[in-house]
Amino acid sequence: MDFVKIFDTTLRDGEQVPGCKLDTKTKLKIAAQLDQLGVDVLEAGFPISSPGDFNSVTQISKTINNAVVCALSRAVEKDIKVAAQALEYAKKPRIHTGIGTSDNHIKYKFNASREQILERAIKAVAYAKRFVEDVEFYAEDAGRTDNEFLALVCEKVIEAGATVLNIPDTTGYCLPEEYGAKIKYLKENIKNIDKAILSCHCHNDLGLATANSIAGVQNGARQIECTINGIGERAGNTSLEEVVMILRQHPDLNLDTRINSKLLFQTSRMVSTEMGMPVQPNKAIVGMNAFAHSSGIHQDGVIKKRETYEIIDPKDVGVTDSAIVLTARSGRAALAFRAKKIGYEFGKLELDRVYDQFLIWADRKKEIKDEDIPVIISESNI
Amino acid sequence: MDFVKIFDTTLRDGEQVPGCKLDTKTKLKIAAQLDQLGVDVLEAGFPISSPGDFNSVTQISKTINNAVVCALSRAVEKDIKVAAQALEYAKKPRIHTGIGTSDNHIKYKFNASREQILERAIKAVAYAKRFVEDVEFYAEDAGRTDNEFLALVCEKVIEAGATVLNIPDTTGYCLPEEYGAKIKYLKENIKNIDKAILSCHCHNDLGLATANSIAGVQNGARQIECTINGIGERAGNTSLEEVVMILRQHPDLNLDTRINSKLLFQTSRMVSTEMGMPVQPNKAIVGMNAFAHSSGIHQDGVIKKRETYEIIDPKDVGVTDSAIVLTARSGRAALAFRAKKIGYEFGKLELDRVYDQFLIWADRKKEIKDEDIPVIISESNI
Repeated sequence: MDFVKIFDTTLRDGEQVPGCKLDTKTKLKIAAQLDQLGVDVLEAGFPISSPGDFNSVTQISKTINNAVVCALSRAVEKDIKVAAQALEYAKKPRIHTGIGTSDNHIKYKFNASREQILERAIKAVAYAKRFVEDVEFYAEDAGRTDNEFLALVCEKVIEAGATVLNIPDTTGYCLPEEYGAKIKYLKENIKNIDKAILSCHCHNDLGLATANSIAGVQNGARQIECTINGIGERAGNTSLEEVVMILRQHPDLNLDTRINSKLLFQTSRMVSTEMGMPVQPNKAIVGMNAFAHSSGIHQDGVIKKRETYEIIDPKDVGVTDSAIVLTARSGRAALAFRAKKIGYEFGKLELDRVYDQFLIWADRKKEIKDEDIPVIISESNI
Repeated sequence: MDFVKIFDTTLRDGEQVPGCKLDTKTKLKIAAQLDQLGVDVLEAGFPISSPGDFNSVTQISKTINNAVVCALSRAVEKDIKVAAQALEYAKKPRIHTGIGTSDNHIKYKFNASREQILERAIKAVAYAKRFVEDVEFYAEDAGRTDNEFLALVCEKVIEAGATVLNIPDTTGYCLPEEYGAKIKYLKENIKNIDKAILSCHCHNDLGLATANSIAGVQNGARQIECTINGIGERAGNTSLEEVVMILRQHPDLNLDTRINSKLLFQTSRMVSTEMGMPVQPNKAIVGMNAFAHSSGIHQDGVIKKRETYEIIDPKDVGVTDSAIVLTARSGRAALAFRAKKIGYEFGKLELDRVYDQFLIWADRKKEIKDEDIPVIISESNI
C-alpha cells in the first residue's frame, strides 16, 4: 500500500470564486477543520496578493500543527520573499512557486522564449530554497505543454532544489488517458525524478478533474491538489471527497490517503456555509441526495441488501440522520430528506408550500428539529 | 467522424429524485425543449409505475416529432404491455426492458440462477418485439457483472431482437479503464454485435460518470444515457452537457453528437427551475461560474488572449450576458456575476447584504435588470 498526499487548496485556489473572499477568522476556522480532516498539505493563500491574505497565511502558520502549510507565489523574487515572510512561524513551511510552460502561455502571457522561461523557473526555485527546505514548483498549463520541454524544466528545477512538481491541467482540457500518459512520461523521462514527487492539479471545465487526478496517481503521481466540494475558479478544482473515496473504495489500486473520511460531510457543510457556495443535491459523496434512494425499485433492492445499490456506507463519510441539520440556509432537498425519514413524502408543489412555511419557522428558530416538521406540514395547507 | 447517440433520461432516471416528481404539463414542456436540443432518444417515463407517468408518456408520444420516444419496463409482461400502450402514438417508439445480471442482483434481488435470468431476459425482449421494432435491453448492475456471462446475455437478447444493449454501471463504482475495458470486451466477444449498438449508462457516486461514458464510446459504444445537469437518484447520472462538450472539444476522438450546444445553458436553467434542483455555481459547462474569472492572474491572461485560460467559448453553450436572468430564484452567484459585469465586486458579508435587498426587489419585480442593480446596492447600506 502506497500513500497519496492530499494537498488541499480550498483556501487558495478554492477561494478564487466571485463573492467568496474569506476573512482571516473564517480562514483559520476552515484551516483547523482541514488539519483535523488529515490533509497533508494546506495551501493557505497567496501572500503577495493582499495584506489580508498575508495576514491569513501568517495566522494559519502559527496555529496549524500537523499539516505542511504552503504559500503561493509567482516566479518573482518579491512574491517569494513575501511568501517566506508569511510562513515564518509555520512548523512545516512550503513555498509553491512556478511559471507557465506551454507555448501559448510563453508567447501570449510572457512574450518570452522557452530558454528564458526555463531560466526564470530555475532562479525562482533556487531563491525559494534560501528560505525553506520544501519547495514545490508548478508548471502552469502543463496540460498543454510539450512533454519533452516539460521534462527538461522539471529536471532542472529538481536540480535547483524542488521537492514537488505540480503538473496542472490549468484549462481542464485533458482526457484521463492523456493526463495519465503525461505523468507516466514525466515519471519515466525526468532523470532525477527519485528526488521529488509529481503532483496532480486538475480543473473541472469538462467534468473530468477527478478522473484525471486518479489517472495521475495510477501513473506514478503521489500528491493530489484538490478542494472541498470541488470549489474554485470557473468549474472548480478536483473534489477532495471524490478522490479520497475512490482510492478507499478501490483497494486494488493499492493507494490510500491519510484522510479521516468520517469528517468529510461535516467539512463539506462548513465550507459551503462559510463561503456561501451551495452544494448541489446530486453532488457525489457530499450532496444532500448522495445516499437518498427514491425509486421503488431501488428502495426495494436496498432493503433486501444495502450493497445492491449502495457502494459506500453513508456513515463512512459522516452522513448520519442528525448530520442533515435543518436551518434557514437549508434547501428543499434537505427538508424533503428529513421529512421522509419521519414518514412524509411530497410532490413538487406540496414541497414548495411546506418549504415556504419551513422558511418562516427557520427564520424564528435556529434549528428545525424532527418534531417541528409535522407542525410545519399541518400549517402548510397541503 | 462517427456519431454518438444521446439518450436523454432526464424525465425518467433524472426524475427519480426526492421531491422532484413532475406533472404531465411540465414533462411536456421539458420534452419539447429536449427535442429542440437535438437528443436522439428521449426516455419519457416508466408507464407501469403510476397513471400519471403513463399519461405523461402518452402525451409526449403524441407531441414529439424528431426524437425516438422510449418507455421503461422491467422484464415483466405486464410492464412491457403497458409501456407499449403508452407508446401507441409515438412516431418512433422504443421499449427499454431489462433485468439485473450481476451475481449480487441475481442472488439478493431475484433469488434466482443465471440460467433463469437469461431466460427471462430473452422472453422480455421477444415479447417487447411483438409491439415495437426498436427494443433496448438493460443489463442492470452490468458494472459488477462477470464479462463472459454479460456477453452471453447480450448475444441471446440480440437474437431475440434487441437493437440496443444498455450496459449500466448502476452503483457508480467503475473506474474509467474498467468500464472502457468492459465495453471493449463486449464489442469483441458478442458474436452478433453488428446487429445492435452498445450504450453507456453511468452513475456519478464517485464523480466518474462522465469519464466512464467517454471511456465507453472510445471503446466502441455509440450511445450515451445522460441527464441535463447530471440529475438523478443519489449522486445522479452522466451530465449530458459534459459528454457533449468533451466530444466537441476533442476532435481527435473523431466522435460527435447531433446536439445543438447553443441550447445547453437555456435547457439547464429550465430543468433546474422546473425540478427545483439547484445547479452549483462550479458545475462544469452550465454552472453560474463556469466561465467566470476572478483571480487577477487569470483575468490578466484572458484579457491578453482568451484561450490562455478558457477552452470553450461561452457563446457555444448559450451563455451570453443576458442569459443570466436575475429573478427571486437566483442565488448570490448570479447576482455577483451580473453586478461584476457592470463594475461592482463584493466581499462575502457585503454580498449577503446586497442579496437581502435584492430579494426584496425580486419579490416585487419579475426580473431584475442591470439598471436596478446600482439602486439595490445603494439601498443595502454597504
